[in-house]
Amino acid sequence: MIAITLIGIGTGNLDHLTAQAVGAMNAADLILLPRKGSAKSDLIDLRRSICAAVLSDGPRVVEFDLPVRDGRDDYLGAVHDWHDAIAAAWAREIATHLPEGGRLALLVWGDPSLYDSSLRIADRLRAGGMDLTLRVVPGITSLQALTAAHAIALNALADPVLITTGRQLRDRGWPDGVGTLAVMLDSGCAFDVLDPAGVHIWWGAYLGMAHEALVDGPLATAAPRIAALRRELRARHGWIMDIYLMRKEMRDGE
Amino acid sequence: MIAITLIGIGTGNLDHLTAQAVGAMNAADLILLPRKGSAKSDLIDLRRSICAAVLSDGPRVVEFDLPVRDGRDDYLGAVHDWHDAIAAAWAREIATHLPEGGRLALLVWGDPSLYDSSLRIADRLRAGGMDLTLRVVPGITSLQALTAAHAIALNALADPVLITTGRQLRDRGWPDGVGTLAVMLDSGCAFDVLDPAGVHIWWGAYLGMAHEALVDGPLATAAPRIAALRRELRARHGWIMDIYLMRKEMRDGE
Repeated sequence: MIAITLIGIGTGNLDHLTAQAVGAMNAADLILLPRKGSAKSDLIDLRRSICAAVLSDGPRVVEFDLPVRDGRDDYLGAVHDWHDAIAAAWAREIATHLPEGGRLALLVWGDPSLYDSSLRIADRLRAGGMDLTLRVVPGITSLQALTAAHAIALNALADPVLITTGRQLRDRGWPDGVGTLAVMLDSGCAFDVLDPAGVHIWWGAYLGMAHEALVDGPLATAAPRIAALRRELRARHGWIMDIYLMRKEMRDGE
Repeated sequence: MIAITLIGIGTGNLDHLTAQAVGAMNAADLILLPRKGSAKSDLIDLRRSICAAVLSDGPRVVEFDLPVRDGRDDYLGAVHDWHDAIAAAWAREIATHLPEGGRLALLVWGDPSLYDSSLRIADRLRAGGMDLTLRVVPGITSLQALTAAHAIALNALADPVLITTGRQLRDRGWPDGVGTLAVMLDSGCAFDVLDPAGVHIWWGAYLGMAHEALVDGPLATAAPRIAALRRELRARHGWIMDIYLMRKEMRDGE
């Protein structure tokens, strides 16, 4: 029996860790850290630092190479194959390091519920016949780090919020009847497809990390500033993760 | 100068507190705890317990009576008046307990960004001429506690999620083009307005608290179970806070 705990570790700021996350990390027999290639080496370094900062002697920390998603046009097909490959990698590490069963923990950026594949990968292991239990420890998401950094509400008063992706925004534009859009997983400035009139944007990159960057303003004037800053930061750090919130009509300001 | 920190404290589970929240609580000169009347006395008891568990000697903890929102038909008007009254109450407590200025902390259930009025109330104080700085500490929301308790993803793969309210769901039904709805602030079973065919629901009440309750299943069969359990729990505890996620077509299950 493998007891898997998916632990939300927030955005890289050690202070975002919950007591529950620290407890779950220390209760594990094995913690698997994915290596994602040199471009995002900051991220595994951050995970290593978090382990070094909060772990007592108990858990064994093992790194493994995360399979790479192929860049073919069929995005969902490529994602499915990629999740299959990650599930196979987890299974190999479990067979190697927990041959008699035990407690496995995985550290998830943000929260395991939001645009993260770990729950789907654990489902694959279960579907493949592995005897497992699954527990989730919530963590602070980059969306919360964004609204906190800008000191803004996610929702306008009594209004809905659509959390979506850069891909969806490019394909569908601004959906009808929604005043607030939060956009994640944008590979680059999908807001360029919008008519910026009446839209305000709050943008952030590397949220919670040492080189956090923030921009906000009317989309018409903020968009080129964000695009330029994004290029510059990406060149400087070798990678970028950003997120933004956009609101039409500032009903929030009353 | 008043330095206001709005601190997300999660859902009542002490283990959901982040290190940042504990640090911000202890750095305050004054922590204001709102009393909401006897029906929700569990909630102020929980806030008192959190203070007792994590505070060192520094901060002074003061309770004040939260004004009551009037129940008139003009919902947004009533909310605006209510926020004005809360801002006036904060201003009175600040004048009494921090006459020379200082650091004020407010403990917010969940996260200050999500369906919480504290940011709007702080804006009112600033608009009224108070010299203040505002800082936000993110916290685990009931939505994250819900998805963690059910060990489910918030979003279907690469798909958007609409976070909305019971009132919006009653008035507008299920919005077009959205596969996943998260519903908060529902005063009672707004899902009853929906055609349940093909809809799965994951529901939770008192999330993170001692009497957490969970139900999930196809909406057609889960809805009456939730309605009955909700009535029973509300009668037993004198109050209820619940939240749910609904998904159409289980594209998630592959």
